[in-house]
Amino acid sequence: MTSHILLINCPDERGLVYKITGVLVKHALNIVSNGEFVEREFNHFFMRTEFSGDFEQQNLLQDLQEVLPAAAEIRLTNKKKKDIVILVTKEHHCLGDLLIRHAFQELNARILAVISNHDVLADLTKKFDVPFHYISHEGKSREAHEAEVMQAIQAYTPDFVVLAKYMRILSPEFVAPYANRLINIHHSFLPAFVGANPYAQAYERGVKIIGATAHFVNEQLDQGPIIAQNVIPVDHTQSAKEMAQAGRDVEKIVLAKSLKMVFDEQVFVYRNKTILFN
Amino acid sequence: MTSHILLINCPDERGLVYKITGVLVKHALNIVSNGEFVEREFNHFFMRTEFSGDFEQQNLLQDLQEVLPAAAEIRLTNKKKKDIVILVTKEHHCLGDLLIRHAFQELNARILAVISNHDVLADLTKKFDVPFHYISHEGKSREAHEAEVMQAIQAYTPDFVVLAKYMRILSPEFVAPYANRLINIHHSFLPAFVGANPYAQAYERGVKIIGATAHFVNEQLDQGPIIAQNVIPVDHTQSAKEMAQAGRDVEKIVLAKSLKMVFDEQVFVYRNKTILFN
Amino acid sequence: MTSHILLINCPDERGLVYKITGVLVKHALNIVSNGEFVEREFNHFFMRTEFSGDFEQQNLLQDLQEVLPAAAEIRLTNKKKKDIVILVTKEHHCLGDLLIRHAFQELNARILAVISNHDVLADLTKKFDVPFHYISHEGKSREAHEAEVMQAIQAYTPDFVVLAKYMRILSPEFVAPYANRLINIHHSFLPAFVGANPYAQAYERGVKIIGATAHFVNEQLDQGPIIAQNVIPVDHTQSAKEMAQAGRDVEKIVLAKSLKMVFDEQVFVYRNKTILFN
Amino acid sequence: MTSHILLINCPDERGLVYKITGVLVKHALNIVSNGEFVEREFNHFFMRTEFSGDFEQQNLLQDLQEVLPAAAEIRLTNKKKKDIVILVTKEHHCLGDLLIRHAFQELNARILAVISNHDVLADLTKKFDVPFHYISHEGKSREAHEAEVMQAIQAYTPDFVVLAKYMRILSPEFVAPYANRLINIHHSFLPAFVGANPYAQAYERGVKIIGATAHFVNEQLDQGPIIAQNVIPVDHTQSAKEMAQAGRDVEKIVLAKSLKMVFDEQVFVYRNKTILFN
Repeated sequence: MTSHILLINCPDERGLVYKITGVLVKHALNIVSNGEFVEREFNHFFMRTEFSGDFEQQNLLQDLQEVLPAAAEIRLTNKKKKDIVILVTKEHHCLGDLLIRHAFQELNARILAVISNHDVLADLTKKFDVPFHYISHEGKSREAHEAEVMQAIQAYTPDFVVLAKYMRILSPEFVAPYANRLINIHHSFLPAFVGANPYAQAYERGVKIIGATAHFVNEQLDQGPIIAQNVIPVDHTQSAKEMAQAGRDVEKIVLAKSLKMVFDEQVFVYRNKTILFN
Repeated sequence: MTSHILLINCPDERGLVYKITGVLVKHALNIVSNGEFVEREFNHFFMRTEFSGDFEQQNLLQDLQEVLPAAAEIRLTNKKKKDIVILVTKEHHCLGDLLIRHAFQELNARILAVISNHDVLADLTKKFDVPFHYISHEGKSREAHEAEVMQAIQAYTPDFVVLAKYMRILSPEFVAPYANRLINIHHSFLPAFVGANPYAQAYERGVKIIGATAHFVNEQLDQGPIIAQNVIPVDHTQSAKEMAQAGRDVEKIVLAKSLKMVFDEQVFVYRNKTILFN
Repeated sequence: MTSHILLINCPDERGLVYKITGVLVKHALNIVSNGEFVEREFNHFFMRTEFSGDFEQQNLLQDLQEVLPAAAEIRLTNKKKKDIVILVTKEHHCLGDLLIRHAFQELNARILAVISNHDVLADLTKKFDVPFHYISHEGKSREAHEAEVMQAIQAYTPDFVVLAKYMRILSPEFVAPYANRLINIHHSFLPAFVGANPYAQAYERGVKIIGATAHFVNEQLDQGPIIAQNVIPVDHTQSAKEMAQAGRDVEKIVLAKSLKMVFDEQVFVYRNKTILFN
Repeated sequence: MTSHILLINCPDERGLVYKITGVLVKHALNIVSNGEFVEREFNHFFMRTEFSGDFEQQNLLQDLQEVLPAAAEIRLTNKKKKDIVILVTKEHHCLGDLLIRHAFQELNARILAVISNHDVLADLTKKFDVPFHYISHEGKSREAHEAEVMQAIQAYTPDFVVLAKYMRILSPEFVAPYANRLINIHHSFLPAFVGANPYAQAYERGVKIIGATAHFVNEQLDQGPIIAQNVIPVDHTQSAKEMAQAGRDVEKIVLAKSLKMVFDEQVFVYRNKTILFN
């Protein structure tokens, strides 16, 4: 029995839940789970409903539009596997974790390809029968390299692009077409330690916790909507390198957790923040 | 503007959210927040709605009863302060934390009295102008002592009784009248280390985490519905006594957190578990 | 039996532990616990030894100086209670927590006085028989107000000054005399959200964790050596105000934990970092 | 430059650190890091020293024996890779994590073989060029099956055997030869939920945290010395199956962390507890 997911957001007004559930009742659909949230700063309404049953999509959407404000965004989707392309540089831990989950049907996604500016992770990727594209940046302008990478991605028309420790800064031109579809794992608890080498920054500052942040990428470096974060304690005995080693486990778990929520359609993006339903 | 809270639970069936929100719309009430949950093992429906607006209580309840299954439990309440009595023995940390919160209006409760089988905490309690009843258990049977304590509690007709490190086991007769209204903090992550001296047990077993559990009390020792739990890391350098010291901060925070949820009407109890809305 | 604490730091060289423990053996002292650490970036040696036994202080220090490099810092101290003065503004949670610990001998300090630029916390402080000085900043220059506060502090000649949510920025002149003796609790996981209103910043950024940082104060705002940090999860349902409420428990626990380590002589400060022995 | 590790434990007495470091100084060895601990219940001394330099092993050990109590256990080892055999049943997450770490030299061990009573994980293992032995238990007595497994293990003469979600209870005869060399990951925060199906037990009990425990295996089920534990929050919305899914990430990280400590010679076992040096 397929589970359908209805995602609605619009300016808040009285009676929205009643109206929306009324449409579902009219179509004789069974609600599996239901979540609502009203953002109080801008008075914006969000609702996520999982339901089952047979329905005529065009009719259902039309009935919803009739009861909802004109500005409402209505999305009818499901939990079917998303198509993704993964970008990496040299570090194996996030990619390895995703490949294992993928191999055992835990990721709710099809990894169509892995693309890297180094060939270090080619062997690992191929073990799992996933195509690996080595696109070196050596001797190329940033623009030229990006254009190559973008072309390689586009050949797969993925739903999402995952930066699983891709160590190059992306231009706004690269990012724009993938609004809310480009997910990065940053190796710090943002907004601390933006940019390069956060573990060295953390060591230098003498912090007692380090962390990782999964976020959607926008045009500003490490400024996009945060999906998930976690931290682990560190102490004075750890060098920057040892912090980086310890941080790997946080990075891979935070990335996988954020991908699960995105691929299961649990995430709204609203004004540079995420709203998460579980 | 007062916020009202509607708590409904009943066997699940199609259209419940639609029916309930329909009644609220009919009475021209504004939903502030809304949460639903369907327990899948027994197919039971839970809904918590905060709303504002003027209404005639009898009419509203009657309208709800008409659309809901006969077995539905419907409770109309609000976030007004609860009346509580606190039982303690000798340890000050949970009581101290509650008295401070109480003094600064953070507890959403009125502490009517503190009752203890020792007089160690009399001074602390009186600093905050709260009545303190010292009811020693010395030279009394358990039954006689319990009867005295119970009488002292009943004089205040509290909404809830809080065991803030009350180190005596309560009889089923004591517990029965306070079903879902008697809250205990136990100094372990239950179900580990039931009963006396959990920190000594934890030390003996060599665990690497210790914790605390706030739960409703039922007739079986440390077996009631769990409201909140948390843990902290420990290591081999800590004695049982040092673990107990470190654990105090977890105990007091977990207790306060659970009380906030209970007093704010966020907690359903269902078949020895809690369902928490936030 | 008094426990003495020997704190040594110096450039690392071969045989330091042997030489130091040799002096202790010579004086027939019993080592209770011993910790060493060599900072590898600058090759600096740290050692903290708790020991018991009778000794002639001048002889012991002289024997240590003879075996140690000339640059060695040697400090002989103990766990006796430190004298402290606490500065607050309007928030009660950190002060309340410290007063309770103080009243029950958990703080390893004597709170000599509480000083505030508001009178909100006068009643709370006086409940615990601690002098409260209300020094309003109204109608005074920052310099004039600081001078008054400093004078009030100096009258107590405290070992440490604790900023338990003191919401005014201190001048370098104020800070300088209290190098490594002035401890602040900042309501974010530094270096994120330096400066004013970190919870509003956290809300605005949409982070999924918030935290608190206890640190020694130096001349640069929120840049001093970090002693302890912790975090809690937050989500999109929480307003900035609710994050601030949730954060209070982290703040008070982190502050108390850091004070315990400092007052128990477990903390070395070295080049804007702390080295913690337990 | 090889780093050597000296592990000593013996009844405590005055001057042990002085005597031991004296021997190291005599042999002109450089201490890289040093940790001591005195267990106070039984007054037992533990010391772990990493050092570098050239030495004649027999001489060094003899010199140490001369200065130490007769009952002292002295072990001279290093951080070189350990040989391990991994036992699994059907779950892939711990094995997958270890194989990835192994492939990228993060495990400080050589995985000589994987043995399973099912063939589900054969493909995964072979991807990483590690021998996989499928030894079905079908139609065999427990004794016969264990004997086969034991024979398969012994053929590799491993330093350690890792139970990475091996779902069969081992007999004391199996366990005995691997005292302190057999490591299991249990899917609960022990001592809660010993035995089969801890996630179902956790769901049934309605706990708000679940966890995992890595421990040495002894003759009593889930009673051996605990090496590492961690937990994650859960709530009423999660089924036992969803708790199990969420718990996988804790299990694999806790197992990997405990193995790193064991293989890096950071772990003493003493009277059913572990003492961990970092």
